[in-house]
Amino acid sequence: MSEKIDNLLHELEKMPGIGPKSAQRIAYWILNTDSANKLADTIKTVKSDVRFCKKCFNYATDDLCEICSNPSRNHKIICVVCEPRNIPPIERTCVFNGIYHVLGGEISPIDGVGPEDLNIAELMNRLVDVDEVVIATNPNVEGETTAAYLARMIKPLGIKITRPASGIPVGGDLEFADEVTLGRALEDRKEI
Amino acid sequence: MSEKIDNLLHELEKMPGIGPKSAQRIAYWILNTDSANKLADTIKTVKSDVRFCKKCFNYATDDLCEICSNPSRNHKIICVVCEPRNIPPIERTCVFNGIYHVLGGEISPIDGVGPEDLNIAELMNRLVDVDEVVIATNPNVEGETTAAYLARMIKPLGIKITRPASGIPVGGDLEFADEVTLGRALEDRKEI
Repeated sequence: MSEKIDNLLHELEKMPGIGPKSAQRIAYWILNTDSANKLADTIKTVKSDVRFCKKCFNYATDDLCEICSNPSRNHKIICVVCEPRNIPPIERTCVFNGIYHVLGGEISPIDGVGPEDLNIAELMNRLVDVDEVVIATNPNVEGETTAAYLARMIKPLGIKITRPASGIPVGGDLEFADEVTLGRALEDRKEI
Repeated sequence: MSEKIDNLLHELEKMPGIGPKSAQRIAYWILNTDSANKLADTIKTVKSDVRFCKKCFNYATDDLCEICSNPSRNHKIICVVCEPRNIPPIERTCVFNGIYHVLGGEISPIDGVGPEDLNIAELMNRLVDVDEVVIATNPNVEGETTAAYLARMIKPLGIKITRPASGIPVGGDLEFADEVTLGRALEDRKEI
């Protein structure tokens, strides 16, 4: 194919989850549709206008993100997450009304990421007049390590530290739960 | 999320094969990567510079596509395809050295596409000093209808008309071939 289309395929294949076949399908869609210029413009706008919130490091179009600048949120509860992409799923639950802090990664010695590479100092600076820190890092090795590190740092301040419960997914099946999850669910059993 | 990111998600979801989850994944990739501006530029370049070949209606960056302007191709054999995207797979076989003609669709009464909506008149005008027309429309109802229509139009000109063979895919398994394909393969059996 022409060099310009090859360039497009090459750029499209860099997108996550897009292999050569999908890239080709999308390239032909781009060639055919009037929407493609709008897509390119939207990418440009986002790249130029979206930055990090100065307070919580979520994505924002102003100095503060929409959550940090919302006075109806409870600013005394901070939920710590690894990445901005962890925030929308929590927001969709409609259960959490506090604000967030994005670490920008998780502690992972194997990838050379230590506590000093994350927004932890910035988190510590925010812990004035705060009632609770919810550490919502992923329930895997790196996430648990990060949570343990944060807990050790925050504990001396006398602030309540919590972590979302692990257990069997709602609508899930006991039979198909892995033993670690099921074990955790039994340990954390609740009286009804 | 912010309105600008919502716009981006909305545009990304228009791409073929991209649902809400993939769009979100790609949106976060766009926010994080330096490649995104280059992707947007490439889309813009392709949209402004790529047009249809004046002869065969394949995508081209000049008046003629790379295949039509290549003197080492056999210009006496024309392979008729429905869409430009059908050309790269044929090219990859390295078996065909002729040139192409893109119809821009296939006859489909159910979608309101008749022969007059396709580049058929343009094909007929090209059939001067041509030895063979290979009708490589898809082996489905619309493709076969289109092929039959073209064959009826071209036959009076005394030009050889061919169609790629149907049969069991190479590396395929007799056991799993559907009966129509297997029937066709038996009818078209070759002496060895």
